[in-house]
Amino acid sequence: MKKHLILTAFLFSSIFCQAQYQPNWQSLDQRPTPTWFEDAKFGIFIHWGLYSVPAWATKSNADGFGSGYAEWYWQRLFAPNLKIHPEFTAFHKKNYGDKSYQDFVQGFKAELFQPDDWATIFEQAGAKYVVLTSKHHEGFTLWPSKESWNWNAVDVGPHRDLAGDLMKSVRAKNLKMGYYYSLYEWFNPTYKSDVHQYVNERMLPQMKDLVTRYQPDILWTDGEWDHPAKTWKSEEFLAWLFNNPTVKDNIVVNDRWGNDTKSKHGSFATSEYGHGGTDNTETTGGFQRPWEECRGMGESFGYNRNENLDSYQTGESLVHQLIDIVAKGGNLLLNIGPAADGTIPVIMQERLHEIGSWLKVNGNAIYGSRKWAKAPAYTKESTLYFTQKGKNLYAISRKWEEVITVQNVAKPSKVSLLGYKGEVKFSYKNGTLIIMTPPVNPSNIPCQYAWTFEIENAL
Amino acid sequence: MKKHLILTAFLFSSIFCQAQYQPNWQSLDQRPTPTWFEDAKFGIFIHWGLYSVPAWATKSNADGFGSGYAEWYWQRLFAPNLKIHPEFTAFHKKNYGDKSYQDFVQGFKAELFQPDDWATIFEQAGAKYVVLTSKHHEGFTLWPSKESWNWNAVDVGPHRDLAGDLMKSVRAKNLKMGYYYSLYEWFNPTYKSDVHQYVNERMLPQMKDLVTRYQPDILWTDGEWDHPAKTWKSEEFLAWLFNNPTVKDNIVVNDRWGNDTKSKHGSFATSEYGHGGTDNTETTGGFQRPWEECRGMGESFGYNRNENLDSYQTGESLVHQLIDIVAKGGNLLLNIGPAADGTIPVIMQERLHEIGSWLKVNGNAIYGSRKWAKAPAYTKESTLYFTQKGKNLYAISRKWEEVITVQNVAKPSKVSLLGYKGEVKFSYKNGTLIIMTPPVNPSNIPCQYAWTFEIENAL
Amino acid sequence: MKKHLILTAFLFSSIFCQAQYQPNWQSLDQRPTPTWFEDAKFGIFIHWGLYSVPAWATKSNADGFGSGYAEWYWQRLFAPNLKIHPEFTAFHKKNYGDKSYQDFVQGFKAELFQPDDWATIFEQAGAKYVVLTSKHHEGFTLWPSKESWNWNAVDVGPHRDLAGDLMKSVRAKNLKMGYYYSLYEWFNPTYKSDVHQYVNERMLPQMKDLVTRYQPDILWTDGEWDHPAKTWKSEEFLAWLFNNPTVKDNIVVNDRWGNDTKSKHGSFATSEYGHGGTDNTETTGGFQRPWEECRGMGESFGYNRNENLDSYQTGESLVHQLIDIVAKGGNLLLNIGPAADGTIPVIMQERLHEIGSWLKVNGNAIYGSRKWAKAPAYTKESTLYFTQKGKNLYAISRKWEEVITVQNVAKPSKVSLLGYKGEVKFSYKNGTLIIMTPPVNPSNIPCQYAWTFEIENAL
Amino acid sequence: MKKHLILTAFLFSSIFCQAQYQPNWQSLDQRPTPTWFEDAKFGIFIHWGLYSVPAWATKSNADGFGSGYAEWYWQRLFAPNLKIHPEFTAFHKKNYGDKSYQDFVQGFKAELFQPDDWATIFEQAGAKYVVLTSKHHEGFTLWPSKESWNWNAVDVGPHRDLAGDLMKSVRAKNLKMGYYYSLYEWFNPTYKSDVHQYVNERMLPQMKDLVTRYQPDILWTDGEWDHPAKTWKSEEFLAWLFNNPTVKDNIVVNDRWGNDTKSKHGSFATSEYGHGGTDNTETTGGFQRPWEECRGMGESFGYNRNENLDSYQTGESLVHQLIDIVAKGGNLLLNIGPAADGTIPVIMQERLHEIGSWLKVNGNAIYGSRKWAKAPAYTKESTLYFTQKGKNLYAISRKWEEVITVQNVAKPSKVSLLGYKGEVKFSYKNGTLIIMTPPVNPSNIPCQYAWTFEIENAL
Repeated sequence: MKKHLILTAFLFSSIFCQAQYQPNWQSLDQRPTPTWFEDAKFGIFIHWGLYSVPAWATKSNADGFGSGYAEWYWQRLFAPNLKIHPEFTAFHKKNYGDKSYQDFVQGFKAELFQPDDWATIFEQAGAKYVVLTSKHHEGFTLWPSKESWNWNAVDVGPHRDLAGDLMKSVRAKNLKMGYYYSLYEWFNPTYKSDVHQYVNERMLPQMKDLVTRYQPDILWTDGEWDHPAKTWKSEEFLAWLFNNPTVKDNIVVNDRWGNDTKSKHGSFATSEYGHGGTDNTETTGGFQRPWEECRGMGESFGYNRNENLDSYQTGESLVHQLIDIVAKGGNLLLNIGPAADGTIPVIMQERLHEIGSWLKVNGNAIYGSRKWAKAPAYTKESTLYFTQKGKNLYAISRKWEEVITVQNVAKPSKVSLLGYKGEVKFSYKNGTLIIMTPPVNPSNIPCQYAWTFEIENAL
Repeated sequence: MKKHLILTAFLFSSIFCQAQYQPNWQSLDQRPTPTWFEDAKFGIFIHWGLYSVPAWATKSNADGFGSGYAEWYWQRLFAPNLKIHPEFTAFHKKNYGDKSYQDFVQGFKAELFQPDDWATIFEQAGAKYVVLTSKHHEGFTLWPSKESWNWNAVDVGPHRDLAGDLMKSVRAKNLKMGYYYSLYEWFNPTYKSDVHQYVNERMLPQMKDLVTRYQPDILWTDGEWDHPAKTWKSEEFLAWLFNNPTVKDNIVVNDRWGNDTKSKHGSFATSEYGHGGTDNTETTGGFQRPWEECRGMGESFGYNRNENLDSYQTGESLVHQLIDIVAKGGNLLLNIGPAADGTIPVIMQERLHEIGSWLKVNGNAIYGSRKWAKAPAYTKESTLYFTQKGKNLYAISRKWEEVITVQNVAKPSKVSLLGYKGEVKFSYKNGTLIIMTPPVNPSNIPCQYAWTFEIENAL
Repeated sequence: MKKHLILTAFLFSSIFCQAQYQPNWQSLDQRPTPTWFEDAKFGIFIHWGLYSVPAWATKSNADGFGSGYAEWYWQRLFAPNLKIHPEFTAFHKKNYGDKSYQDFVQGFKAELFQPDDWATIFEQAGAKYVVLTSKHHEGFTLWPSKESWNWNAVDVGPHRDLAGDLMKSVRAKNLKMGYYYSLYEWFNPTYKSDVHQYVNERMLPQMKDLVTRYQPDILWTDGEWDHPAKTWKSEEFLAWLFNNPTVKDNIVVNDRWGNDTKSKHGSFATSEYGHGGTDNTETTGGFQRPWEECRGMGESFGYNRNENLDSYQTGESLVHQLIDIVAKGGNLLLNIGPAADGTIPVIMQERLHEIGSWLKVNGNAIYGSRKWAKAPAYTKESTLYFTQKGKNLYAISRKWEEVITVQNVAKPSKVSLLGYKGEVKFSYKNGTLIIMTPPVNPSNIPCQYAWTFEIENAL
Repeated sequence: MKKHLILTAFLFSSIFCQAQYQPNWQSLDQRPTPTWFEDAKFGIFIHWGLYSVPAWATKSNADGFGSGYAEWYWQRLFAPNLKIHPEFTAFHKKNYGDKSYQDFVQGFKAELFQPDDWATIFEQAGAKYVVLTSKHHEGFTLWPSKESWNWNAVDVGPHRDLAGDLMKSVRAKNLKMGYYYSLYEWFNPTYKSDVHQYVNERMLPQMKDLVTRYQPDILWTDGEWDHPAKTWKSEEFLAWLFNNPTVKDNIVVNDRWGNDTKSKHGSFATSEYGHGGTDNTETTGGFQRPWEECRGMGESFGYNRNENLDSYQTGESLVHQLIDIVAKGGNLLLNIGPAADGTIPVIMQERLHEIGSWLKVNGNAIYGSRKWAKAPAYTKESTLYFTQKGKNLYAISRKWEEVITVQNVAKPSKVSLLGYKGEVKFSYKNGTLIIMTPPVNPSNIPCQYAWTFEIENAL
């Protein structure tokens, strides 16, 4: 009897589920992006690894070549063109002498890591999802990967399943949990000598292990640029993933599956520090998917002790960027770089708090919103941004103006300033709405940085 | 001609000055406090030492007993009453096993210490002086003290004269440089077995060495509570100091010279975290000297990695405290706790920046000001504070009000809002001034946190 | 012309050589053991790895369970039966707190490793071959194995190819070079979850890499006991090895290729610390191969700092064991355990020197010798041992006797005492030889420990 | 009643004891050397300190300038003449980078220190006394000296009273316990700037503390060469010491009390590595005191990892030196250099064991013996040495001879070979004794290295 049931279940899953997606883009691209992702708008990226020990990069990304990226420390030490990165080798020599990068593992202890505190900080920042580097280009894994024996956070260093412990805390706050995973590894000798062996014996088993262990909501790959998707066997993997019963409902993946996939395949397109032109691509309709912009609070993803206050974006600047991105239909994946001891540098907590304070007042204009098709083209000088949700339009002004003008709308039933209890006057004529901003002062202003006018039933 | 003057000055100083102060309080108390100190209003306190390595204290000073002080880590480990501080021993055991406190010296490297950057940060914060822990109760010295051979920052740990290098950078910014020095040392066996030997062979030679090497502008003693000033030979030392030709013009000392000197002797009185009732003492006229309040940004002086954002005062709160203190005639000595690597945690840079931004607009009401004798008594509910300078009165409001009323003043020639270009209307009648605050919004408001009305010629 | 030769050689090797051995025991057992091995008699075993960092085991192997083996340190920490090895966990806790075994890598520096000095020491000890642990059960490799990325001596720890550098120095002294390689790895998660994957992806590639890189003369496997040879794919590997043109002439392998191969397959049989009954097996004729006994100078293979002088065998005892083993047809593989810094503890140098001094005098009776078939059965009380070489018989007496009697020999042409210049008298009758030992005293005795009578033309 | 007794005791001690020696050489030189010292003949010197961490010196003392002394490591790094010691700086740079010498304290753990085992090893070596470096020229103390707070073995490093713990174990074996103490300290800034302050505040208090704490049997000073005894206040100290009731009966001191005291004052004269001509001085009658020769087993006092077997004296050589020294009336203070972990390198245990084995047989000729006044003058070629005890003469031959001739003796009642049970034949005529050495072989020879003939009633 029982046997019969199992057999039936097996047949059912064989016929209906397992067969849903085939290992080719044509089939894989049929899968819609789960809605939660486009609704979420704001996520936290976390770069944490051995690079968090030296935690250093040049102060200014002056060479336009990522010299401010602390997580690239190892690569910088061996950069082919020493004209570009001599500061790294000088810093390393002075402070660590003959130690190798791998020796940093002894300083990666995470002894003060409190994942519940982290999750609380993320939740209060208004973030809806979290993406942790399960493995960066260095190859060190934050979970006990058997393919990376003695080169993972349980066997050495922290002696703790950082990836798993954070997941539990994040989910307890009802946030989504995702993992970054680097396809390539700079110095892995197997990767360098035989990419196929590497893909079969290390990369694919690791990604499947990650999915099986933690059922992530996001898989955020990177380091794909050396090879096409065929080499990485990305189609096979994605078919396995999209058919996997434990994650198939929620999982979203980005577009970094080979040097031929960016803005072509995956659940969403990615942009980094505003480079990459994602927005253009996306607006062309060539890739009808959500998109996401990631960046650090300064110029680095990994924690960089060489960044002083002037390297950090202000809370205002970060809120302005969030507004810009969301108005253009994207998500912001804002990065933090925890210290090797497991603490989140308090300045990062401060910035998250500033964003969270703004979102507490203005979240209605952000979460679940969509780009407004009739919005004017945004430029660097733009101060007024729009989002829409249902029949409502949201006008978000990054500058306080006495009068705000909105065109191409229906006559609204009501206009209000989010967080402000008083009335907001407006006039309407021929599709043009004119809002008279109310008088505010420090005692009654609802928030800092930018102000949202909710325009009801104007669409 | 000039030569003649110098010679005269020399003779004068030889005959009258060197003998000027005698080693007794009656004589020492004759020395006026150099004016620069009372004019300065805002200084930076720096706690840096071996405690910056574990950099840990309990999160909340719940016991009202300083359990949040990270710089007391060593003492906490050996606290007689383990009911009070068991968290310290538990933390130590877990993270450092059998290591002793002294072993932390190997982690105190200051490898990223950039004193010029520090000085720039302090200057931009609007601070006028700096006080560095040359030696805390642990006994480790930040300068190459020969009395503390192999237990100082040059022989071990950083292998650098931290005290001297910071002095040079601070003075290059025209800030005053001072040193904190703990009279007692918790665990020094000589101190414990023979305080006189300790005073003669270690303490006095060290203080004189510090003065002779660096000619500080401030000597900020502490750890005086075990013994009266006679035991510490404070009168002898102060006579030496006040007669010392290299420092006598500028040096100020605090009031911690024995368990019988607080608010009685010294150039200024001290208060800590608002405890100690300095203000009361001072207002009674019992001690007609400037006073200074010191505190950390959180609950600790030494860097405490266990403090998250919610442990830190906001920029607004710190500005409000500065206003409160200055209105009461005091100075704020705001503490930062650098990390063992020589960086200033960026959140501390942020708070200093917030204060500096406020002082850039409102400094005129702070620097060189004095307490206004006719100010109303301040309470915890007070929002309006006053300072005076010459014939001008400054009304600083921590809350934005539409109307501000000031009593007991003459009719002012003009009222303005510092940082605001528009006109400020007011009315005056029978000693009562009524100021109509101008309309402001985020686009034209001069600053955050508190607003200053300059009331000219009202005294 | 040259091209033609190479082609011919290739064809020849293809047809005759590569096909010479098939991957089955029937074929593999056909391969004779290269003669050099049986002639060598004395080799040096070297156990060096992360266990050389704690370098500790219980003082006495009291439990008869290997508790004196320092190289098993990791396993001891996790021994299932804590009744057996609680001293290890106590030692670890006290000295290393929460550090994991893997963390020892930071103490394995080999900074004083001078392989030329090592080789000189081995040569002067009279050793003819060397066997180094290229990888012990811990899984850490002493060569840059790409299958053990970041868990090998080049990537971490010594940052040096210990296996390769020692090989060069050893060969420069005309000694044979071999490698120990552990088939299993205690804690390798792949090994534990899927032995086939482990064999295919790690073990076989590593062994082939080792052979290809260094063309060893010996491959000394171990850790075979969990599985039969089929699981380890030993037949396939040995066929590859025996047909490999770069090593096939010289390579010898031991008998540890599965839990079904000991004293059945391989170039020679192994015994350890006199356990295992190799001698019996061998004399039964069941396995007509050379055999080798390995042991440490004390009770450990890996360096054990807990061994004082009384744990070490004396030079006399080691020479006596060498005699016993060689008389029974075996080789002695005497182990040394270098320190983590790359030095050979001087007491080990001393013991090797004592053996070398004896071999300088008596080597003629050892090297190239064979067991004498007519020797009396040896017991623990035996003092007189025999070897033979050509027509000569060697009688080696571990005790100085006035008269030595040898039976079952032909009348010798001459009897001499090796190292002694004077005449040696003897009488002969009916197959019985009676040797009158010459009078010796400290001034003319040729050596210590044991004395060899060369009996010419007696066979 | 009790009070009365105490008073009497006080008066007695005041009048007779405390006043016995005055602080001038004339008085101090009256004190006879306690007999135990001259009877002891063989002691163990122990050099242990921070230098045991790098434990390195050049291999050969080629420059004749002590370059093989590992305990001088710190001084070598700062040697004024880098032509002499560049190897030290090169070694340091390569292995320790920018670390200072003081940083070695973190590697000095003594975690395996078992003082009872040490004492057993010393006792079995036949030693009668032990001299431990309580403080070498580096200034680090092995006991909790309050004058060296945080620069002693209890506060940092081993966190253990090494000096006190060893004392207890040594005395439990009925050996005498002594301490080496360096008067000067290379880099102590107080010493360098004001030797008087140094003597008063550090040196004298430390020596008195050492005596008061442990009541040593020997105080072995060194580092005296910079200043005359007056500067070191040696007379005052020795008067205090010789009158001190707890040590005055047993204490012996050496002759290093100023650059004007060697072989002039103190309980015994010192020689080092055979340099210094002590023997000549002593035989001239200029200093009628016992003398002592100290030396390492190799070329270093502190443990030198750079010494291989060929750097170590053999057991035979050390026994020969002991014989030479004792025959000349001296003591041998043989040095060992423990490792930083608290173990005694086993080769040192081996050498001590070899000496102990010889002394077990021949101790009667050594302990309590005196130089024989009628002995022939010894040269480098001498093989026959003499000691006397009561009416017996001991002839110790470092070479095995068939006949031994002794002149200037009375007719002995008996001649025997120590450790040999058989009879020894001799003839006597006109003051000349001819001993016929008995036939020995490895089975009945009593010992190695040298053989003693006890000649009874010959004096």
